[in-house]
Amino acid sequence: MKNYVKKYYKFLIGLTPQRNLVYGFLLYNVIGALLLCLPFSRKGDISFIDTLFTSTSAISTTGLMTVGLTDQFTVFGQFVVMLLFQIGGIGYMTFTTYILLNTSHHTAKWRERILNAAFAIPETIQLRPFLKSVIIFTILFEIVGTILFYIGFADQEWGFWERLWNSIFHSVSAFCTAGFSLFNSGFVDFVDDGLINFTVSFLAIAGSLGFIIFSDFYLKFARKKHEVSYTSKLILSGFLILLSLGTVAIYFTEPSIMILEGKTRFYASFFQSMTAMTTVGFNTIDNGVMILPVTMITILLMYIGASPSGTSGGLKITTLVATVAYLRSKLKNCKDFLFFNTKIPDGRVDAAVSTFIFYLIVSFFGVLLLTFSEADTLDRIAFEVLSALGTVGLSMGITGGLTFFGKAVIICIMFIGRLGVLTFGLAISRAYVPDEQEAEDEEDIAV
Amino acid sequence: MKNYVKKYYKFLIGLTPQRNLVYGFLLYNVIGALLLCLPFSRKGDISFIDTLFTSTSAISTTGLMTVGLTDQFTVFGQFVVMLLFQIGGIGYMTFTTYILLNTSHHTAKWRERILNAAFAIPETIQLRPFLKSVIIFTILFEIVGTILFYIGFADQEWGFWERLWNSIFHSVSAFCTAGFSLFNSGFVDFVDDGLINFTVSFLAIAGSLGFIIFSDFYLKFARKKHEVSYTSKLILSGFLILLSLGTVAIYFTEPSIMILEGKTRFYASFFQSMTAMTTVGFNTIDNGVMILPVTMITILLMYIGASPSGTSGGLKITTLVATVAYLRSKLKNCKDFLFFNTKIPDGRVDAAVSTFIFYLIVSFFGVLLLTFSEADTLDRIAFEVLSALGTVGLSMGITGGLTFFGKAVIICIMFIGRLGVLTFGLAISRAYVPDEQEAEDEEDIAV
Ligand SMILES: [K+]
Ligand SMILES: [K+]
Repeated sequence: MKNYVKKYYKFLIGLTPQRNLVYGFLLYNVIGALLLCLPFSRKGDISFIDTLFTSTSAISTTGLMTVGLTDQFTVFGQFVVMLLFQIGGIGYMTFTTYILLNTSHHTAKWRERILNAAFAIPETIQLRPFLKSVIIFTILFEIVGTILFYIGFADQEWGFWERLWNSIFHSVSAFCTAGFSLFNSGFVDFVDDGLINFTVSFLAIAGSLGFIIFSDFYLKFARKKHEVSYTSKLILSGFLILLSLGTVAIYFTEPSIMILEGKTRFYASFFQSMTAMTTVGFNTIDNGVMILPVTMITILLMYIGASPSGTSGGLKITTLVATVAYLRSKLKNCKDFLFFNTKIPDGRVDAAVSTFIFYLIVSFFGVLLLTFSEADTLDRIAFEVLSALGTVGLSMGITGGLTFFGKAVIICIMFIGRLGVLTFGLAISRAYVPDEQEAEDEEDIAV
Repeated sequence: MKNYVKKYYKFLIGLTPQRNLVYGFLLYNVIGALLLCLPFSRKGDISFIDTLFTSTSAISTTGLMTVGLTDQFTVFGQFVVMLLFQIGGIGYMTFTTYILLNTSHHTAKWRERILNAAFAIPETIQLRPFLKSVIIFTILFEIVGTILFYIGFADQEWGFWERLWNSIFHSVSAFCTAGFSLFNSGFVDFVDDGLINFTVSFLAIAGSLGFIIFSDFYLKFARKKHEVSYTSKLILSGFLILLSLGTVAIYFTEPSIMILEGKTRFYASFFQSMTAMTTVGFNTIDNGVMILPVTMITILLMYIGASPSGTSGGLKITTLVATVAYLRSKLKNCKDFLFFNTKIPDGRVDAAVSTFIFYLIVSFFGVLLLTFSEADTLDRIAFEVLSALGTVGLSMGITGGLTFFGKAVIICIMFIGRLGVLTFGLAISRAYVPDEQEAEDEEDIAV
């Protein structure tokens, strides 16, 4: 056995980073699916495609489920699922931040100011000590989240252990933007609960913005002298603008939210916009009854996603910005890619544009395949596909009824949604050699 | 009056080609709408938005109608509509071919071999004599089409003039890929008529491939020595491959076609694939009852369109090829844009990629706006928007029931669908200076 493991690791070392990632993902996925097949993981019979679906959904931090997490899995099974999305979340955040740092003009600045200052990391960025920082960051947040959830769950008729387990599970699930829930109707019962709304949002936003952005802003406020990087500012302002626009649009459009009163109406609109953008995928309203325009807005927010340094899926705000800069330069017939008078390097724009198109092609063919296998409407199918591709996990209610073929397609899309961006990122990271002679006013953003 | 016209032309000359195009389009559009408002153009009251819709639909050769062409307009009104799509078709084909020739590496070759040989055009390409060749090409085809339709309409209980008028109208409509029909149910009654199927397809394919491609192949067969250009080969083979794939997919999927027998089933599948790709927009089946997968396939074909040198709308095959080459180069991490071992120039790829994204953004926001104003399903709305953007004119039956806002949105989309590509084309044409030193094996394709 040990020999096989050694052989596997030797095999991994010989691969390109992209292939390494893919095989690593597949390995965890298969181990997860096998663990979930164990008799003490599940309460009854679950077909292999459903355990594979659950495992893929967990490791990709999507949160879509074809079977009930509490109805069909034991606490051990739930623990395996949590482990998978914890590994998926940390792994993804580490990789994205690593790529970000290694392909950024800010590397030196960031390394010096953030990493060394806050976490005492050596000069050269290496994956191992860096992974340690990310894990510390993650555990800190998840402990705070667990405490907040524990307080928030005071009204539930649970014993100590059940309340603790629910708090831990949902804290990890929210921070990793996994969106798995032990409640059958998600957070619908907590739609008017301020503390729960805050806790989920706080964790999901922290996790989706990620380690780099968070430390950048943390240092600004903790040590007044620190200057926040252009990328961090861009991501945070873009995130806040889109989050606000989404909230306002949903507040004034969705009938099932407009009937809610006072604060609850605001909570529900904010939560829907937040859940789509951070791609956490928890829900406080029934997404199956949304009107078509709100479905489309949610799809758009899921497609965009949040920050390239966190656990969120989707296209990312930086990719959107670079694509806008690209189109603008073509329409204005100028060679430089400008966004609010700041030049974006060509390599970044290239990565952004190809990711943008790649996502759209996967979306279209995903939807096309499902229209063949599923007897459902286009809006519900498109919502499911975009949710899987953005690793969001929201659904209009078709996941449980998917055909075998439909499940297989969604598994592939979750896989692509999680690894697609990384693959592009790594390809560009290899190709991209920063030009030190570039103009002073050229700012680099991560894609 | 004459003074104003002079002033208008002076105004036009001072503009950039893009603005010139836009203002020209608007002028014809307003003149058309005003002519259609005249009492002897219409049989009853038609609101201004409907005449504007009809006029925009005609000048952009789309063919969508909010009111019945024979029910609501007199023969004079129908004649105005025909004049508008004739002008739109010729104007568009002239402009696209002009851009193609002026931005192509093949200019010299093409000018010499095609233009001079076939139409005795002087060395320098000028718009006026070139326009003449396109008009001759158009009239020749439309006469042949009229004769074929006249024979095909033998079974109809019409007098000579009515039969002639129907033959002329449908011949011009097919060749300009306008898709306006004097029959309320389009060509549904002719679904099993071989001659009518052939005539429509022949005219639409010739019109959508356009003057350059047609002469290129004509010369190959007429004068054996002529070598067909890479672009022409690429467009024709791409067109034939997609047309065949579409036909086969529809043949084996669409229930309303699968119930047809023998040749008719083939005719109907071929016609549906052909009408979407050439963007002519005539129909022999009821598009309102198609199953979802076939709707998606039709949307895809409408989105792609055919050749950049003809009257068809959509993205064009060349743009698709260049976008595929772009993605391939990014995934493979190589600098050159290759398609089957042929290098595509950077400028072309840039134009293609920006057009591709631009089209998608317009599609999404068009659909989003209509979900607010129309109480209809996503598939029917998406079909309508893509049909308008590709200037196709197929509909699942929602055009007549559109709200005022919905009509305004579709008018804008038809406008963008017709001028969007030209605007990009001209922008690139200004920016693009062919590099004579480029490698021998680098082939240029038109976008
Ligand atoms: K998720
Ligand atoms: K048309």
